[in-house]
Amino acid sequence: MTERERPALLLIDIQKGFDDIEYWGGDRNNPEAEKRAGQLLLYWRENRLPVFHVKHCSTNPESRLAEGKIGNDFMDVVKPEAGEPVIRKNVNSAFIGTDLKQQLDALNVKTVVIAGLTTDHCVSTTTRMAGNFGYETYLVADACSTFDKVGVNGQKFSAQIIHDTALASLHNEFATVIQADELLKLIGDSKVSI
Amino acid sequence: MTERERPALLLIDIQKGFDDIEYWGGDRNNPEAEKRAGQLLLYWRENRLPVFHVKHCSTNPESRLAEGKIGNDFMDVVKPEAGEPVIRKNVNSAFIGTDLKQQLDALNVKTVVIAGLTTDHCVSTTTRMAGNFGYETYLVADACSTFDKVGVNGQKFSAQIIHDTALASLHNEFATVIQADELLKLIGDSKVSI
Repeated sequence: MTERERPALLLIDIQKGFDDIEYWGGDRNNPEAEKRAGQLLLYWRENRLPVFHVKHCSTNPESRLAEGKIGNDFMDVVKPEAGEPVIRKNVNSAFIGTDLKQQLDALNVKTVVIAGLTTDHCVSTTTRMAGNFGYETYLVADACSTFDKVGVNGQKFSAQIIHDTALASLHNEFATVIQADELLKLIGDSKVSI
Repeated sequence: MTERERPALLLIDIQKGFDDIEYWGGDRNNPEAEKRAGQLLLYWRENRLPVFHVKHCSTNPESRLAEGKIGNDFMDVVKPEAGEPVIRKNVNSAFIGTDLKQQLDALNVKTVVIAGLTTDHCVSTTTRMAGNFGYETYLVADACSTFDKVGVNGQKFSAQIIHDTALASLHNEFATVIQADELLKLIGDSKVSI
């Protein structure tokens, strides 16, 4: 991937509702994930590369991410600027019930870079579909985060093991999993220090 | 879910190529998964419910699952009978590059039951899309299996932890994860002992 290929940045569900860590599982990993995503966004803006802000608009009125609630708003660190497209979805995949694929294809995007929340739910699902649609797909590990989870049989899994196993299942099958600093080196001379 | 709702059984990639355990990661979990899937298939046949055999036809000629290789064949325990539809795919999701959704919708299927190989790759991806498309989705834990995996940073993960964390991420978000015997109790009087 190079800057000339004009990769698109897909920022998934980086919304204030995820600040309620207790609600989502009790603990999370990668506390700097949103900051990393913000640094990627800055790079994309400075280089006038395509950015898509994906927003989860839960149809469950009780959800922290329901429209009309403060939690539905994007976090300040990745707040869209005028003219940057916002993709509203109400399922995990940013490609289902949206025109994201049509918008990417209209821009002749071949490469996508994905970051956001949460690693194993909306990020993983969007990454799987991007890879399966044939986009060259990069997933930025340190710009993603998830929460502790309880397994089917009541096992407790830490956010870190959920994150790490989710990435292990995605890497080299659906996407290249990469750190933000490595990605920026790969894409060109970084104008943003990570 | 009841039998009257005519749930469709989606058997994912239960192909001979997965017998080469060394090739796929060195070890696997749920050695009885294919047998369980075969028992589900028998129940579906006896009750004349819709079955879809999903077959991975890798475009990589070196793959154990490439067309023309013996590994591309379905395992004997789930070999399709005449008239049972086979969905050929070449990516992880059974819904991408296929007419599976159209076939399900033509039969007015609202509920799908998913089993097969491997839990965290093709099964997970198909389950995520089924759930996001709005099907009531059941994933049969003991009729799925995966392999050991090496993480992004070289960590070694057992097949069991990859399987268990994959299911934890899917359960109650994309699907109801269930054991085969519980599923058959739920669906009606089981005519097949598990």
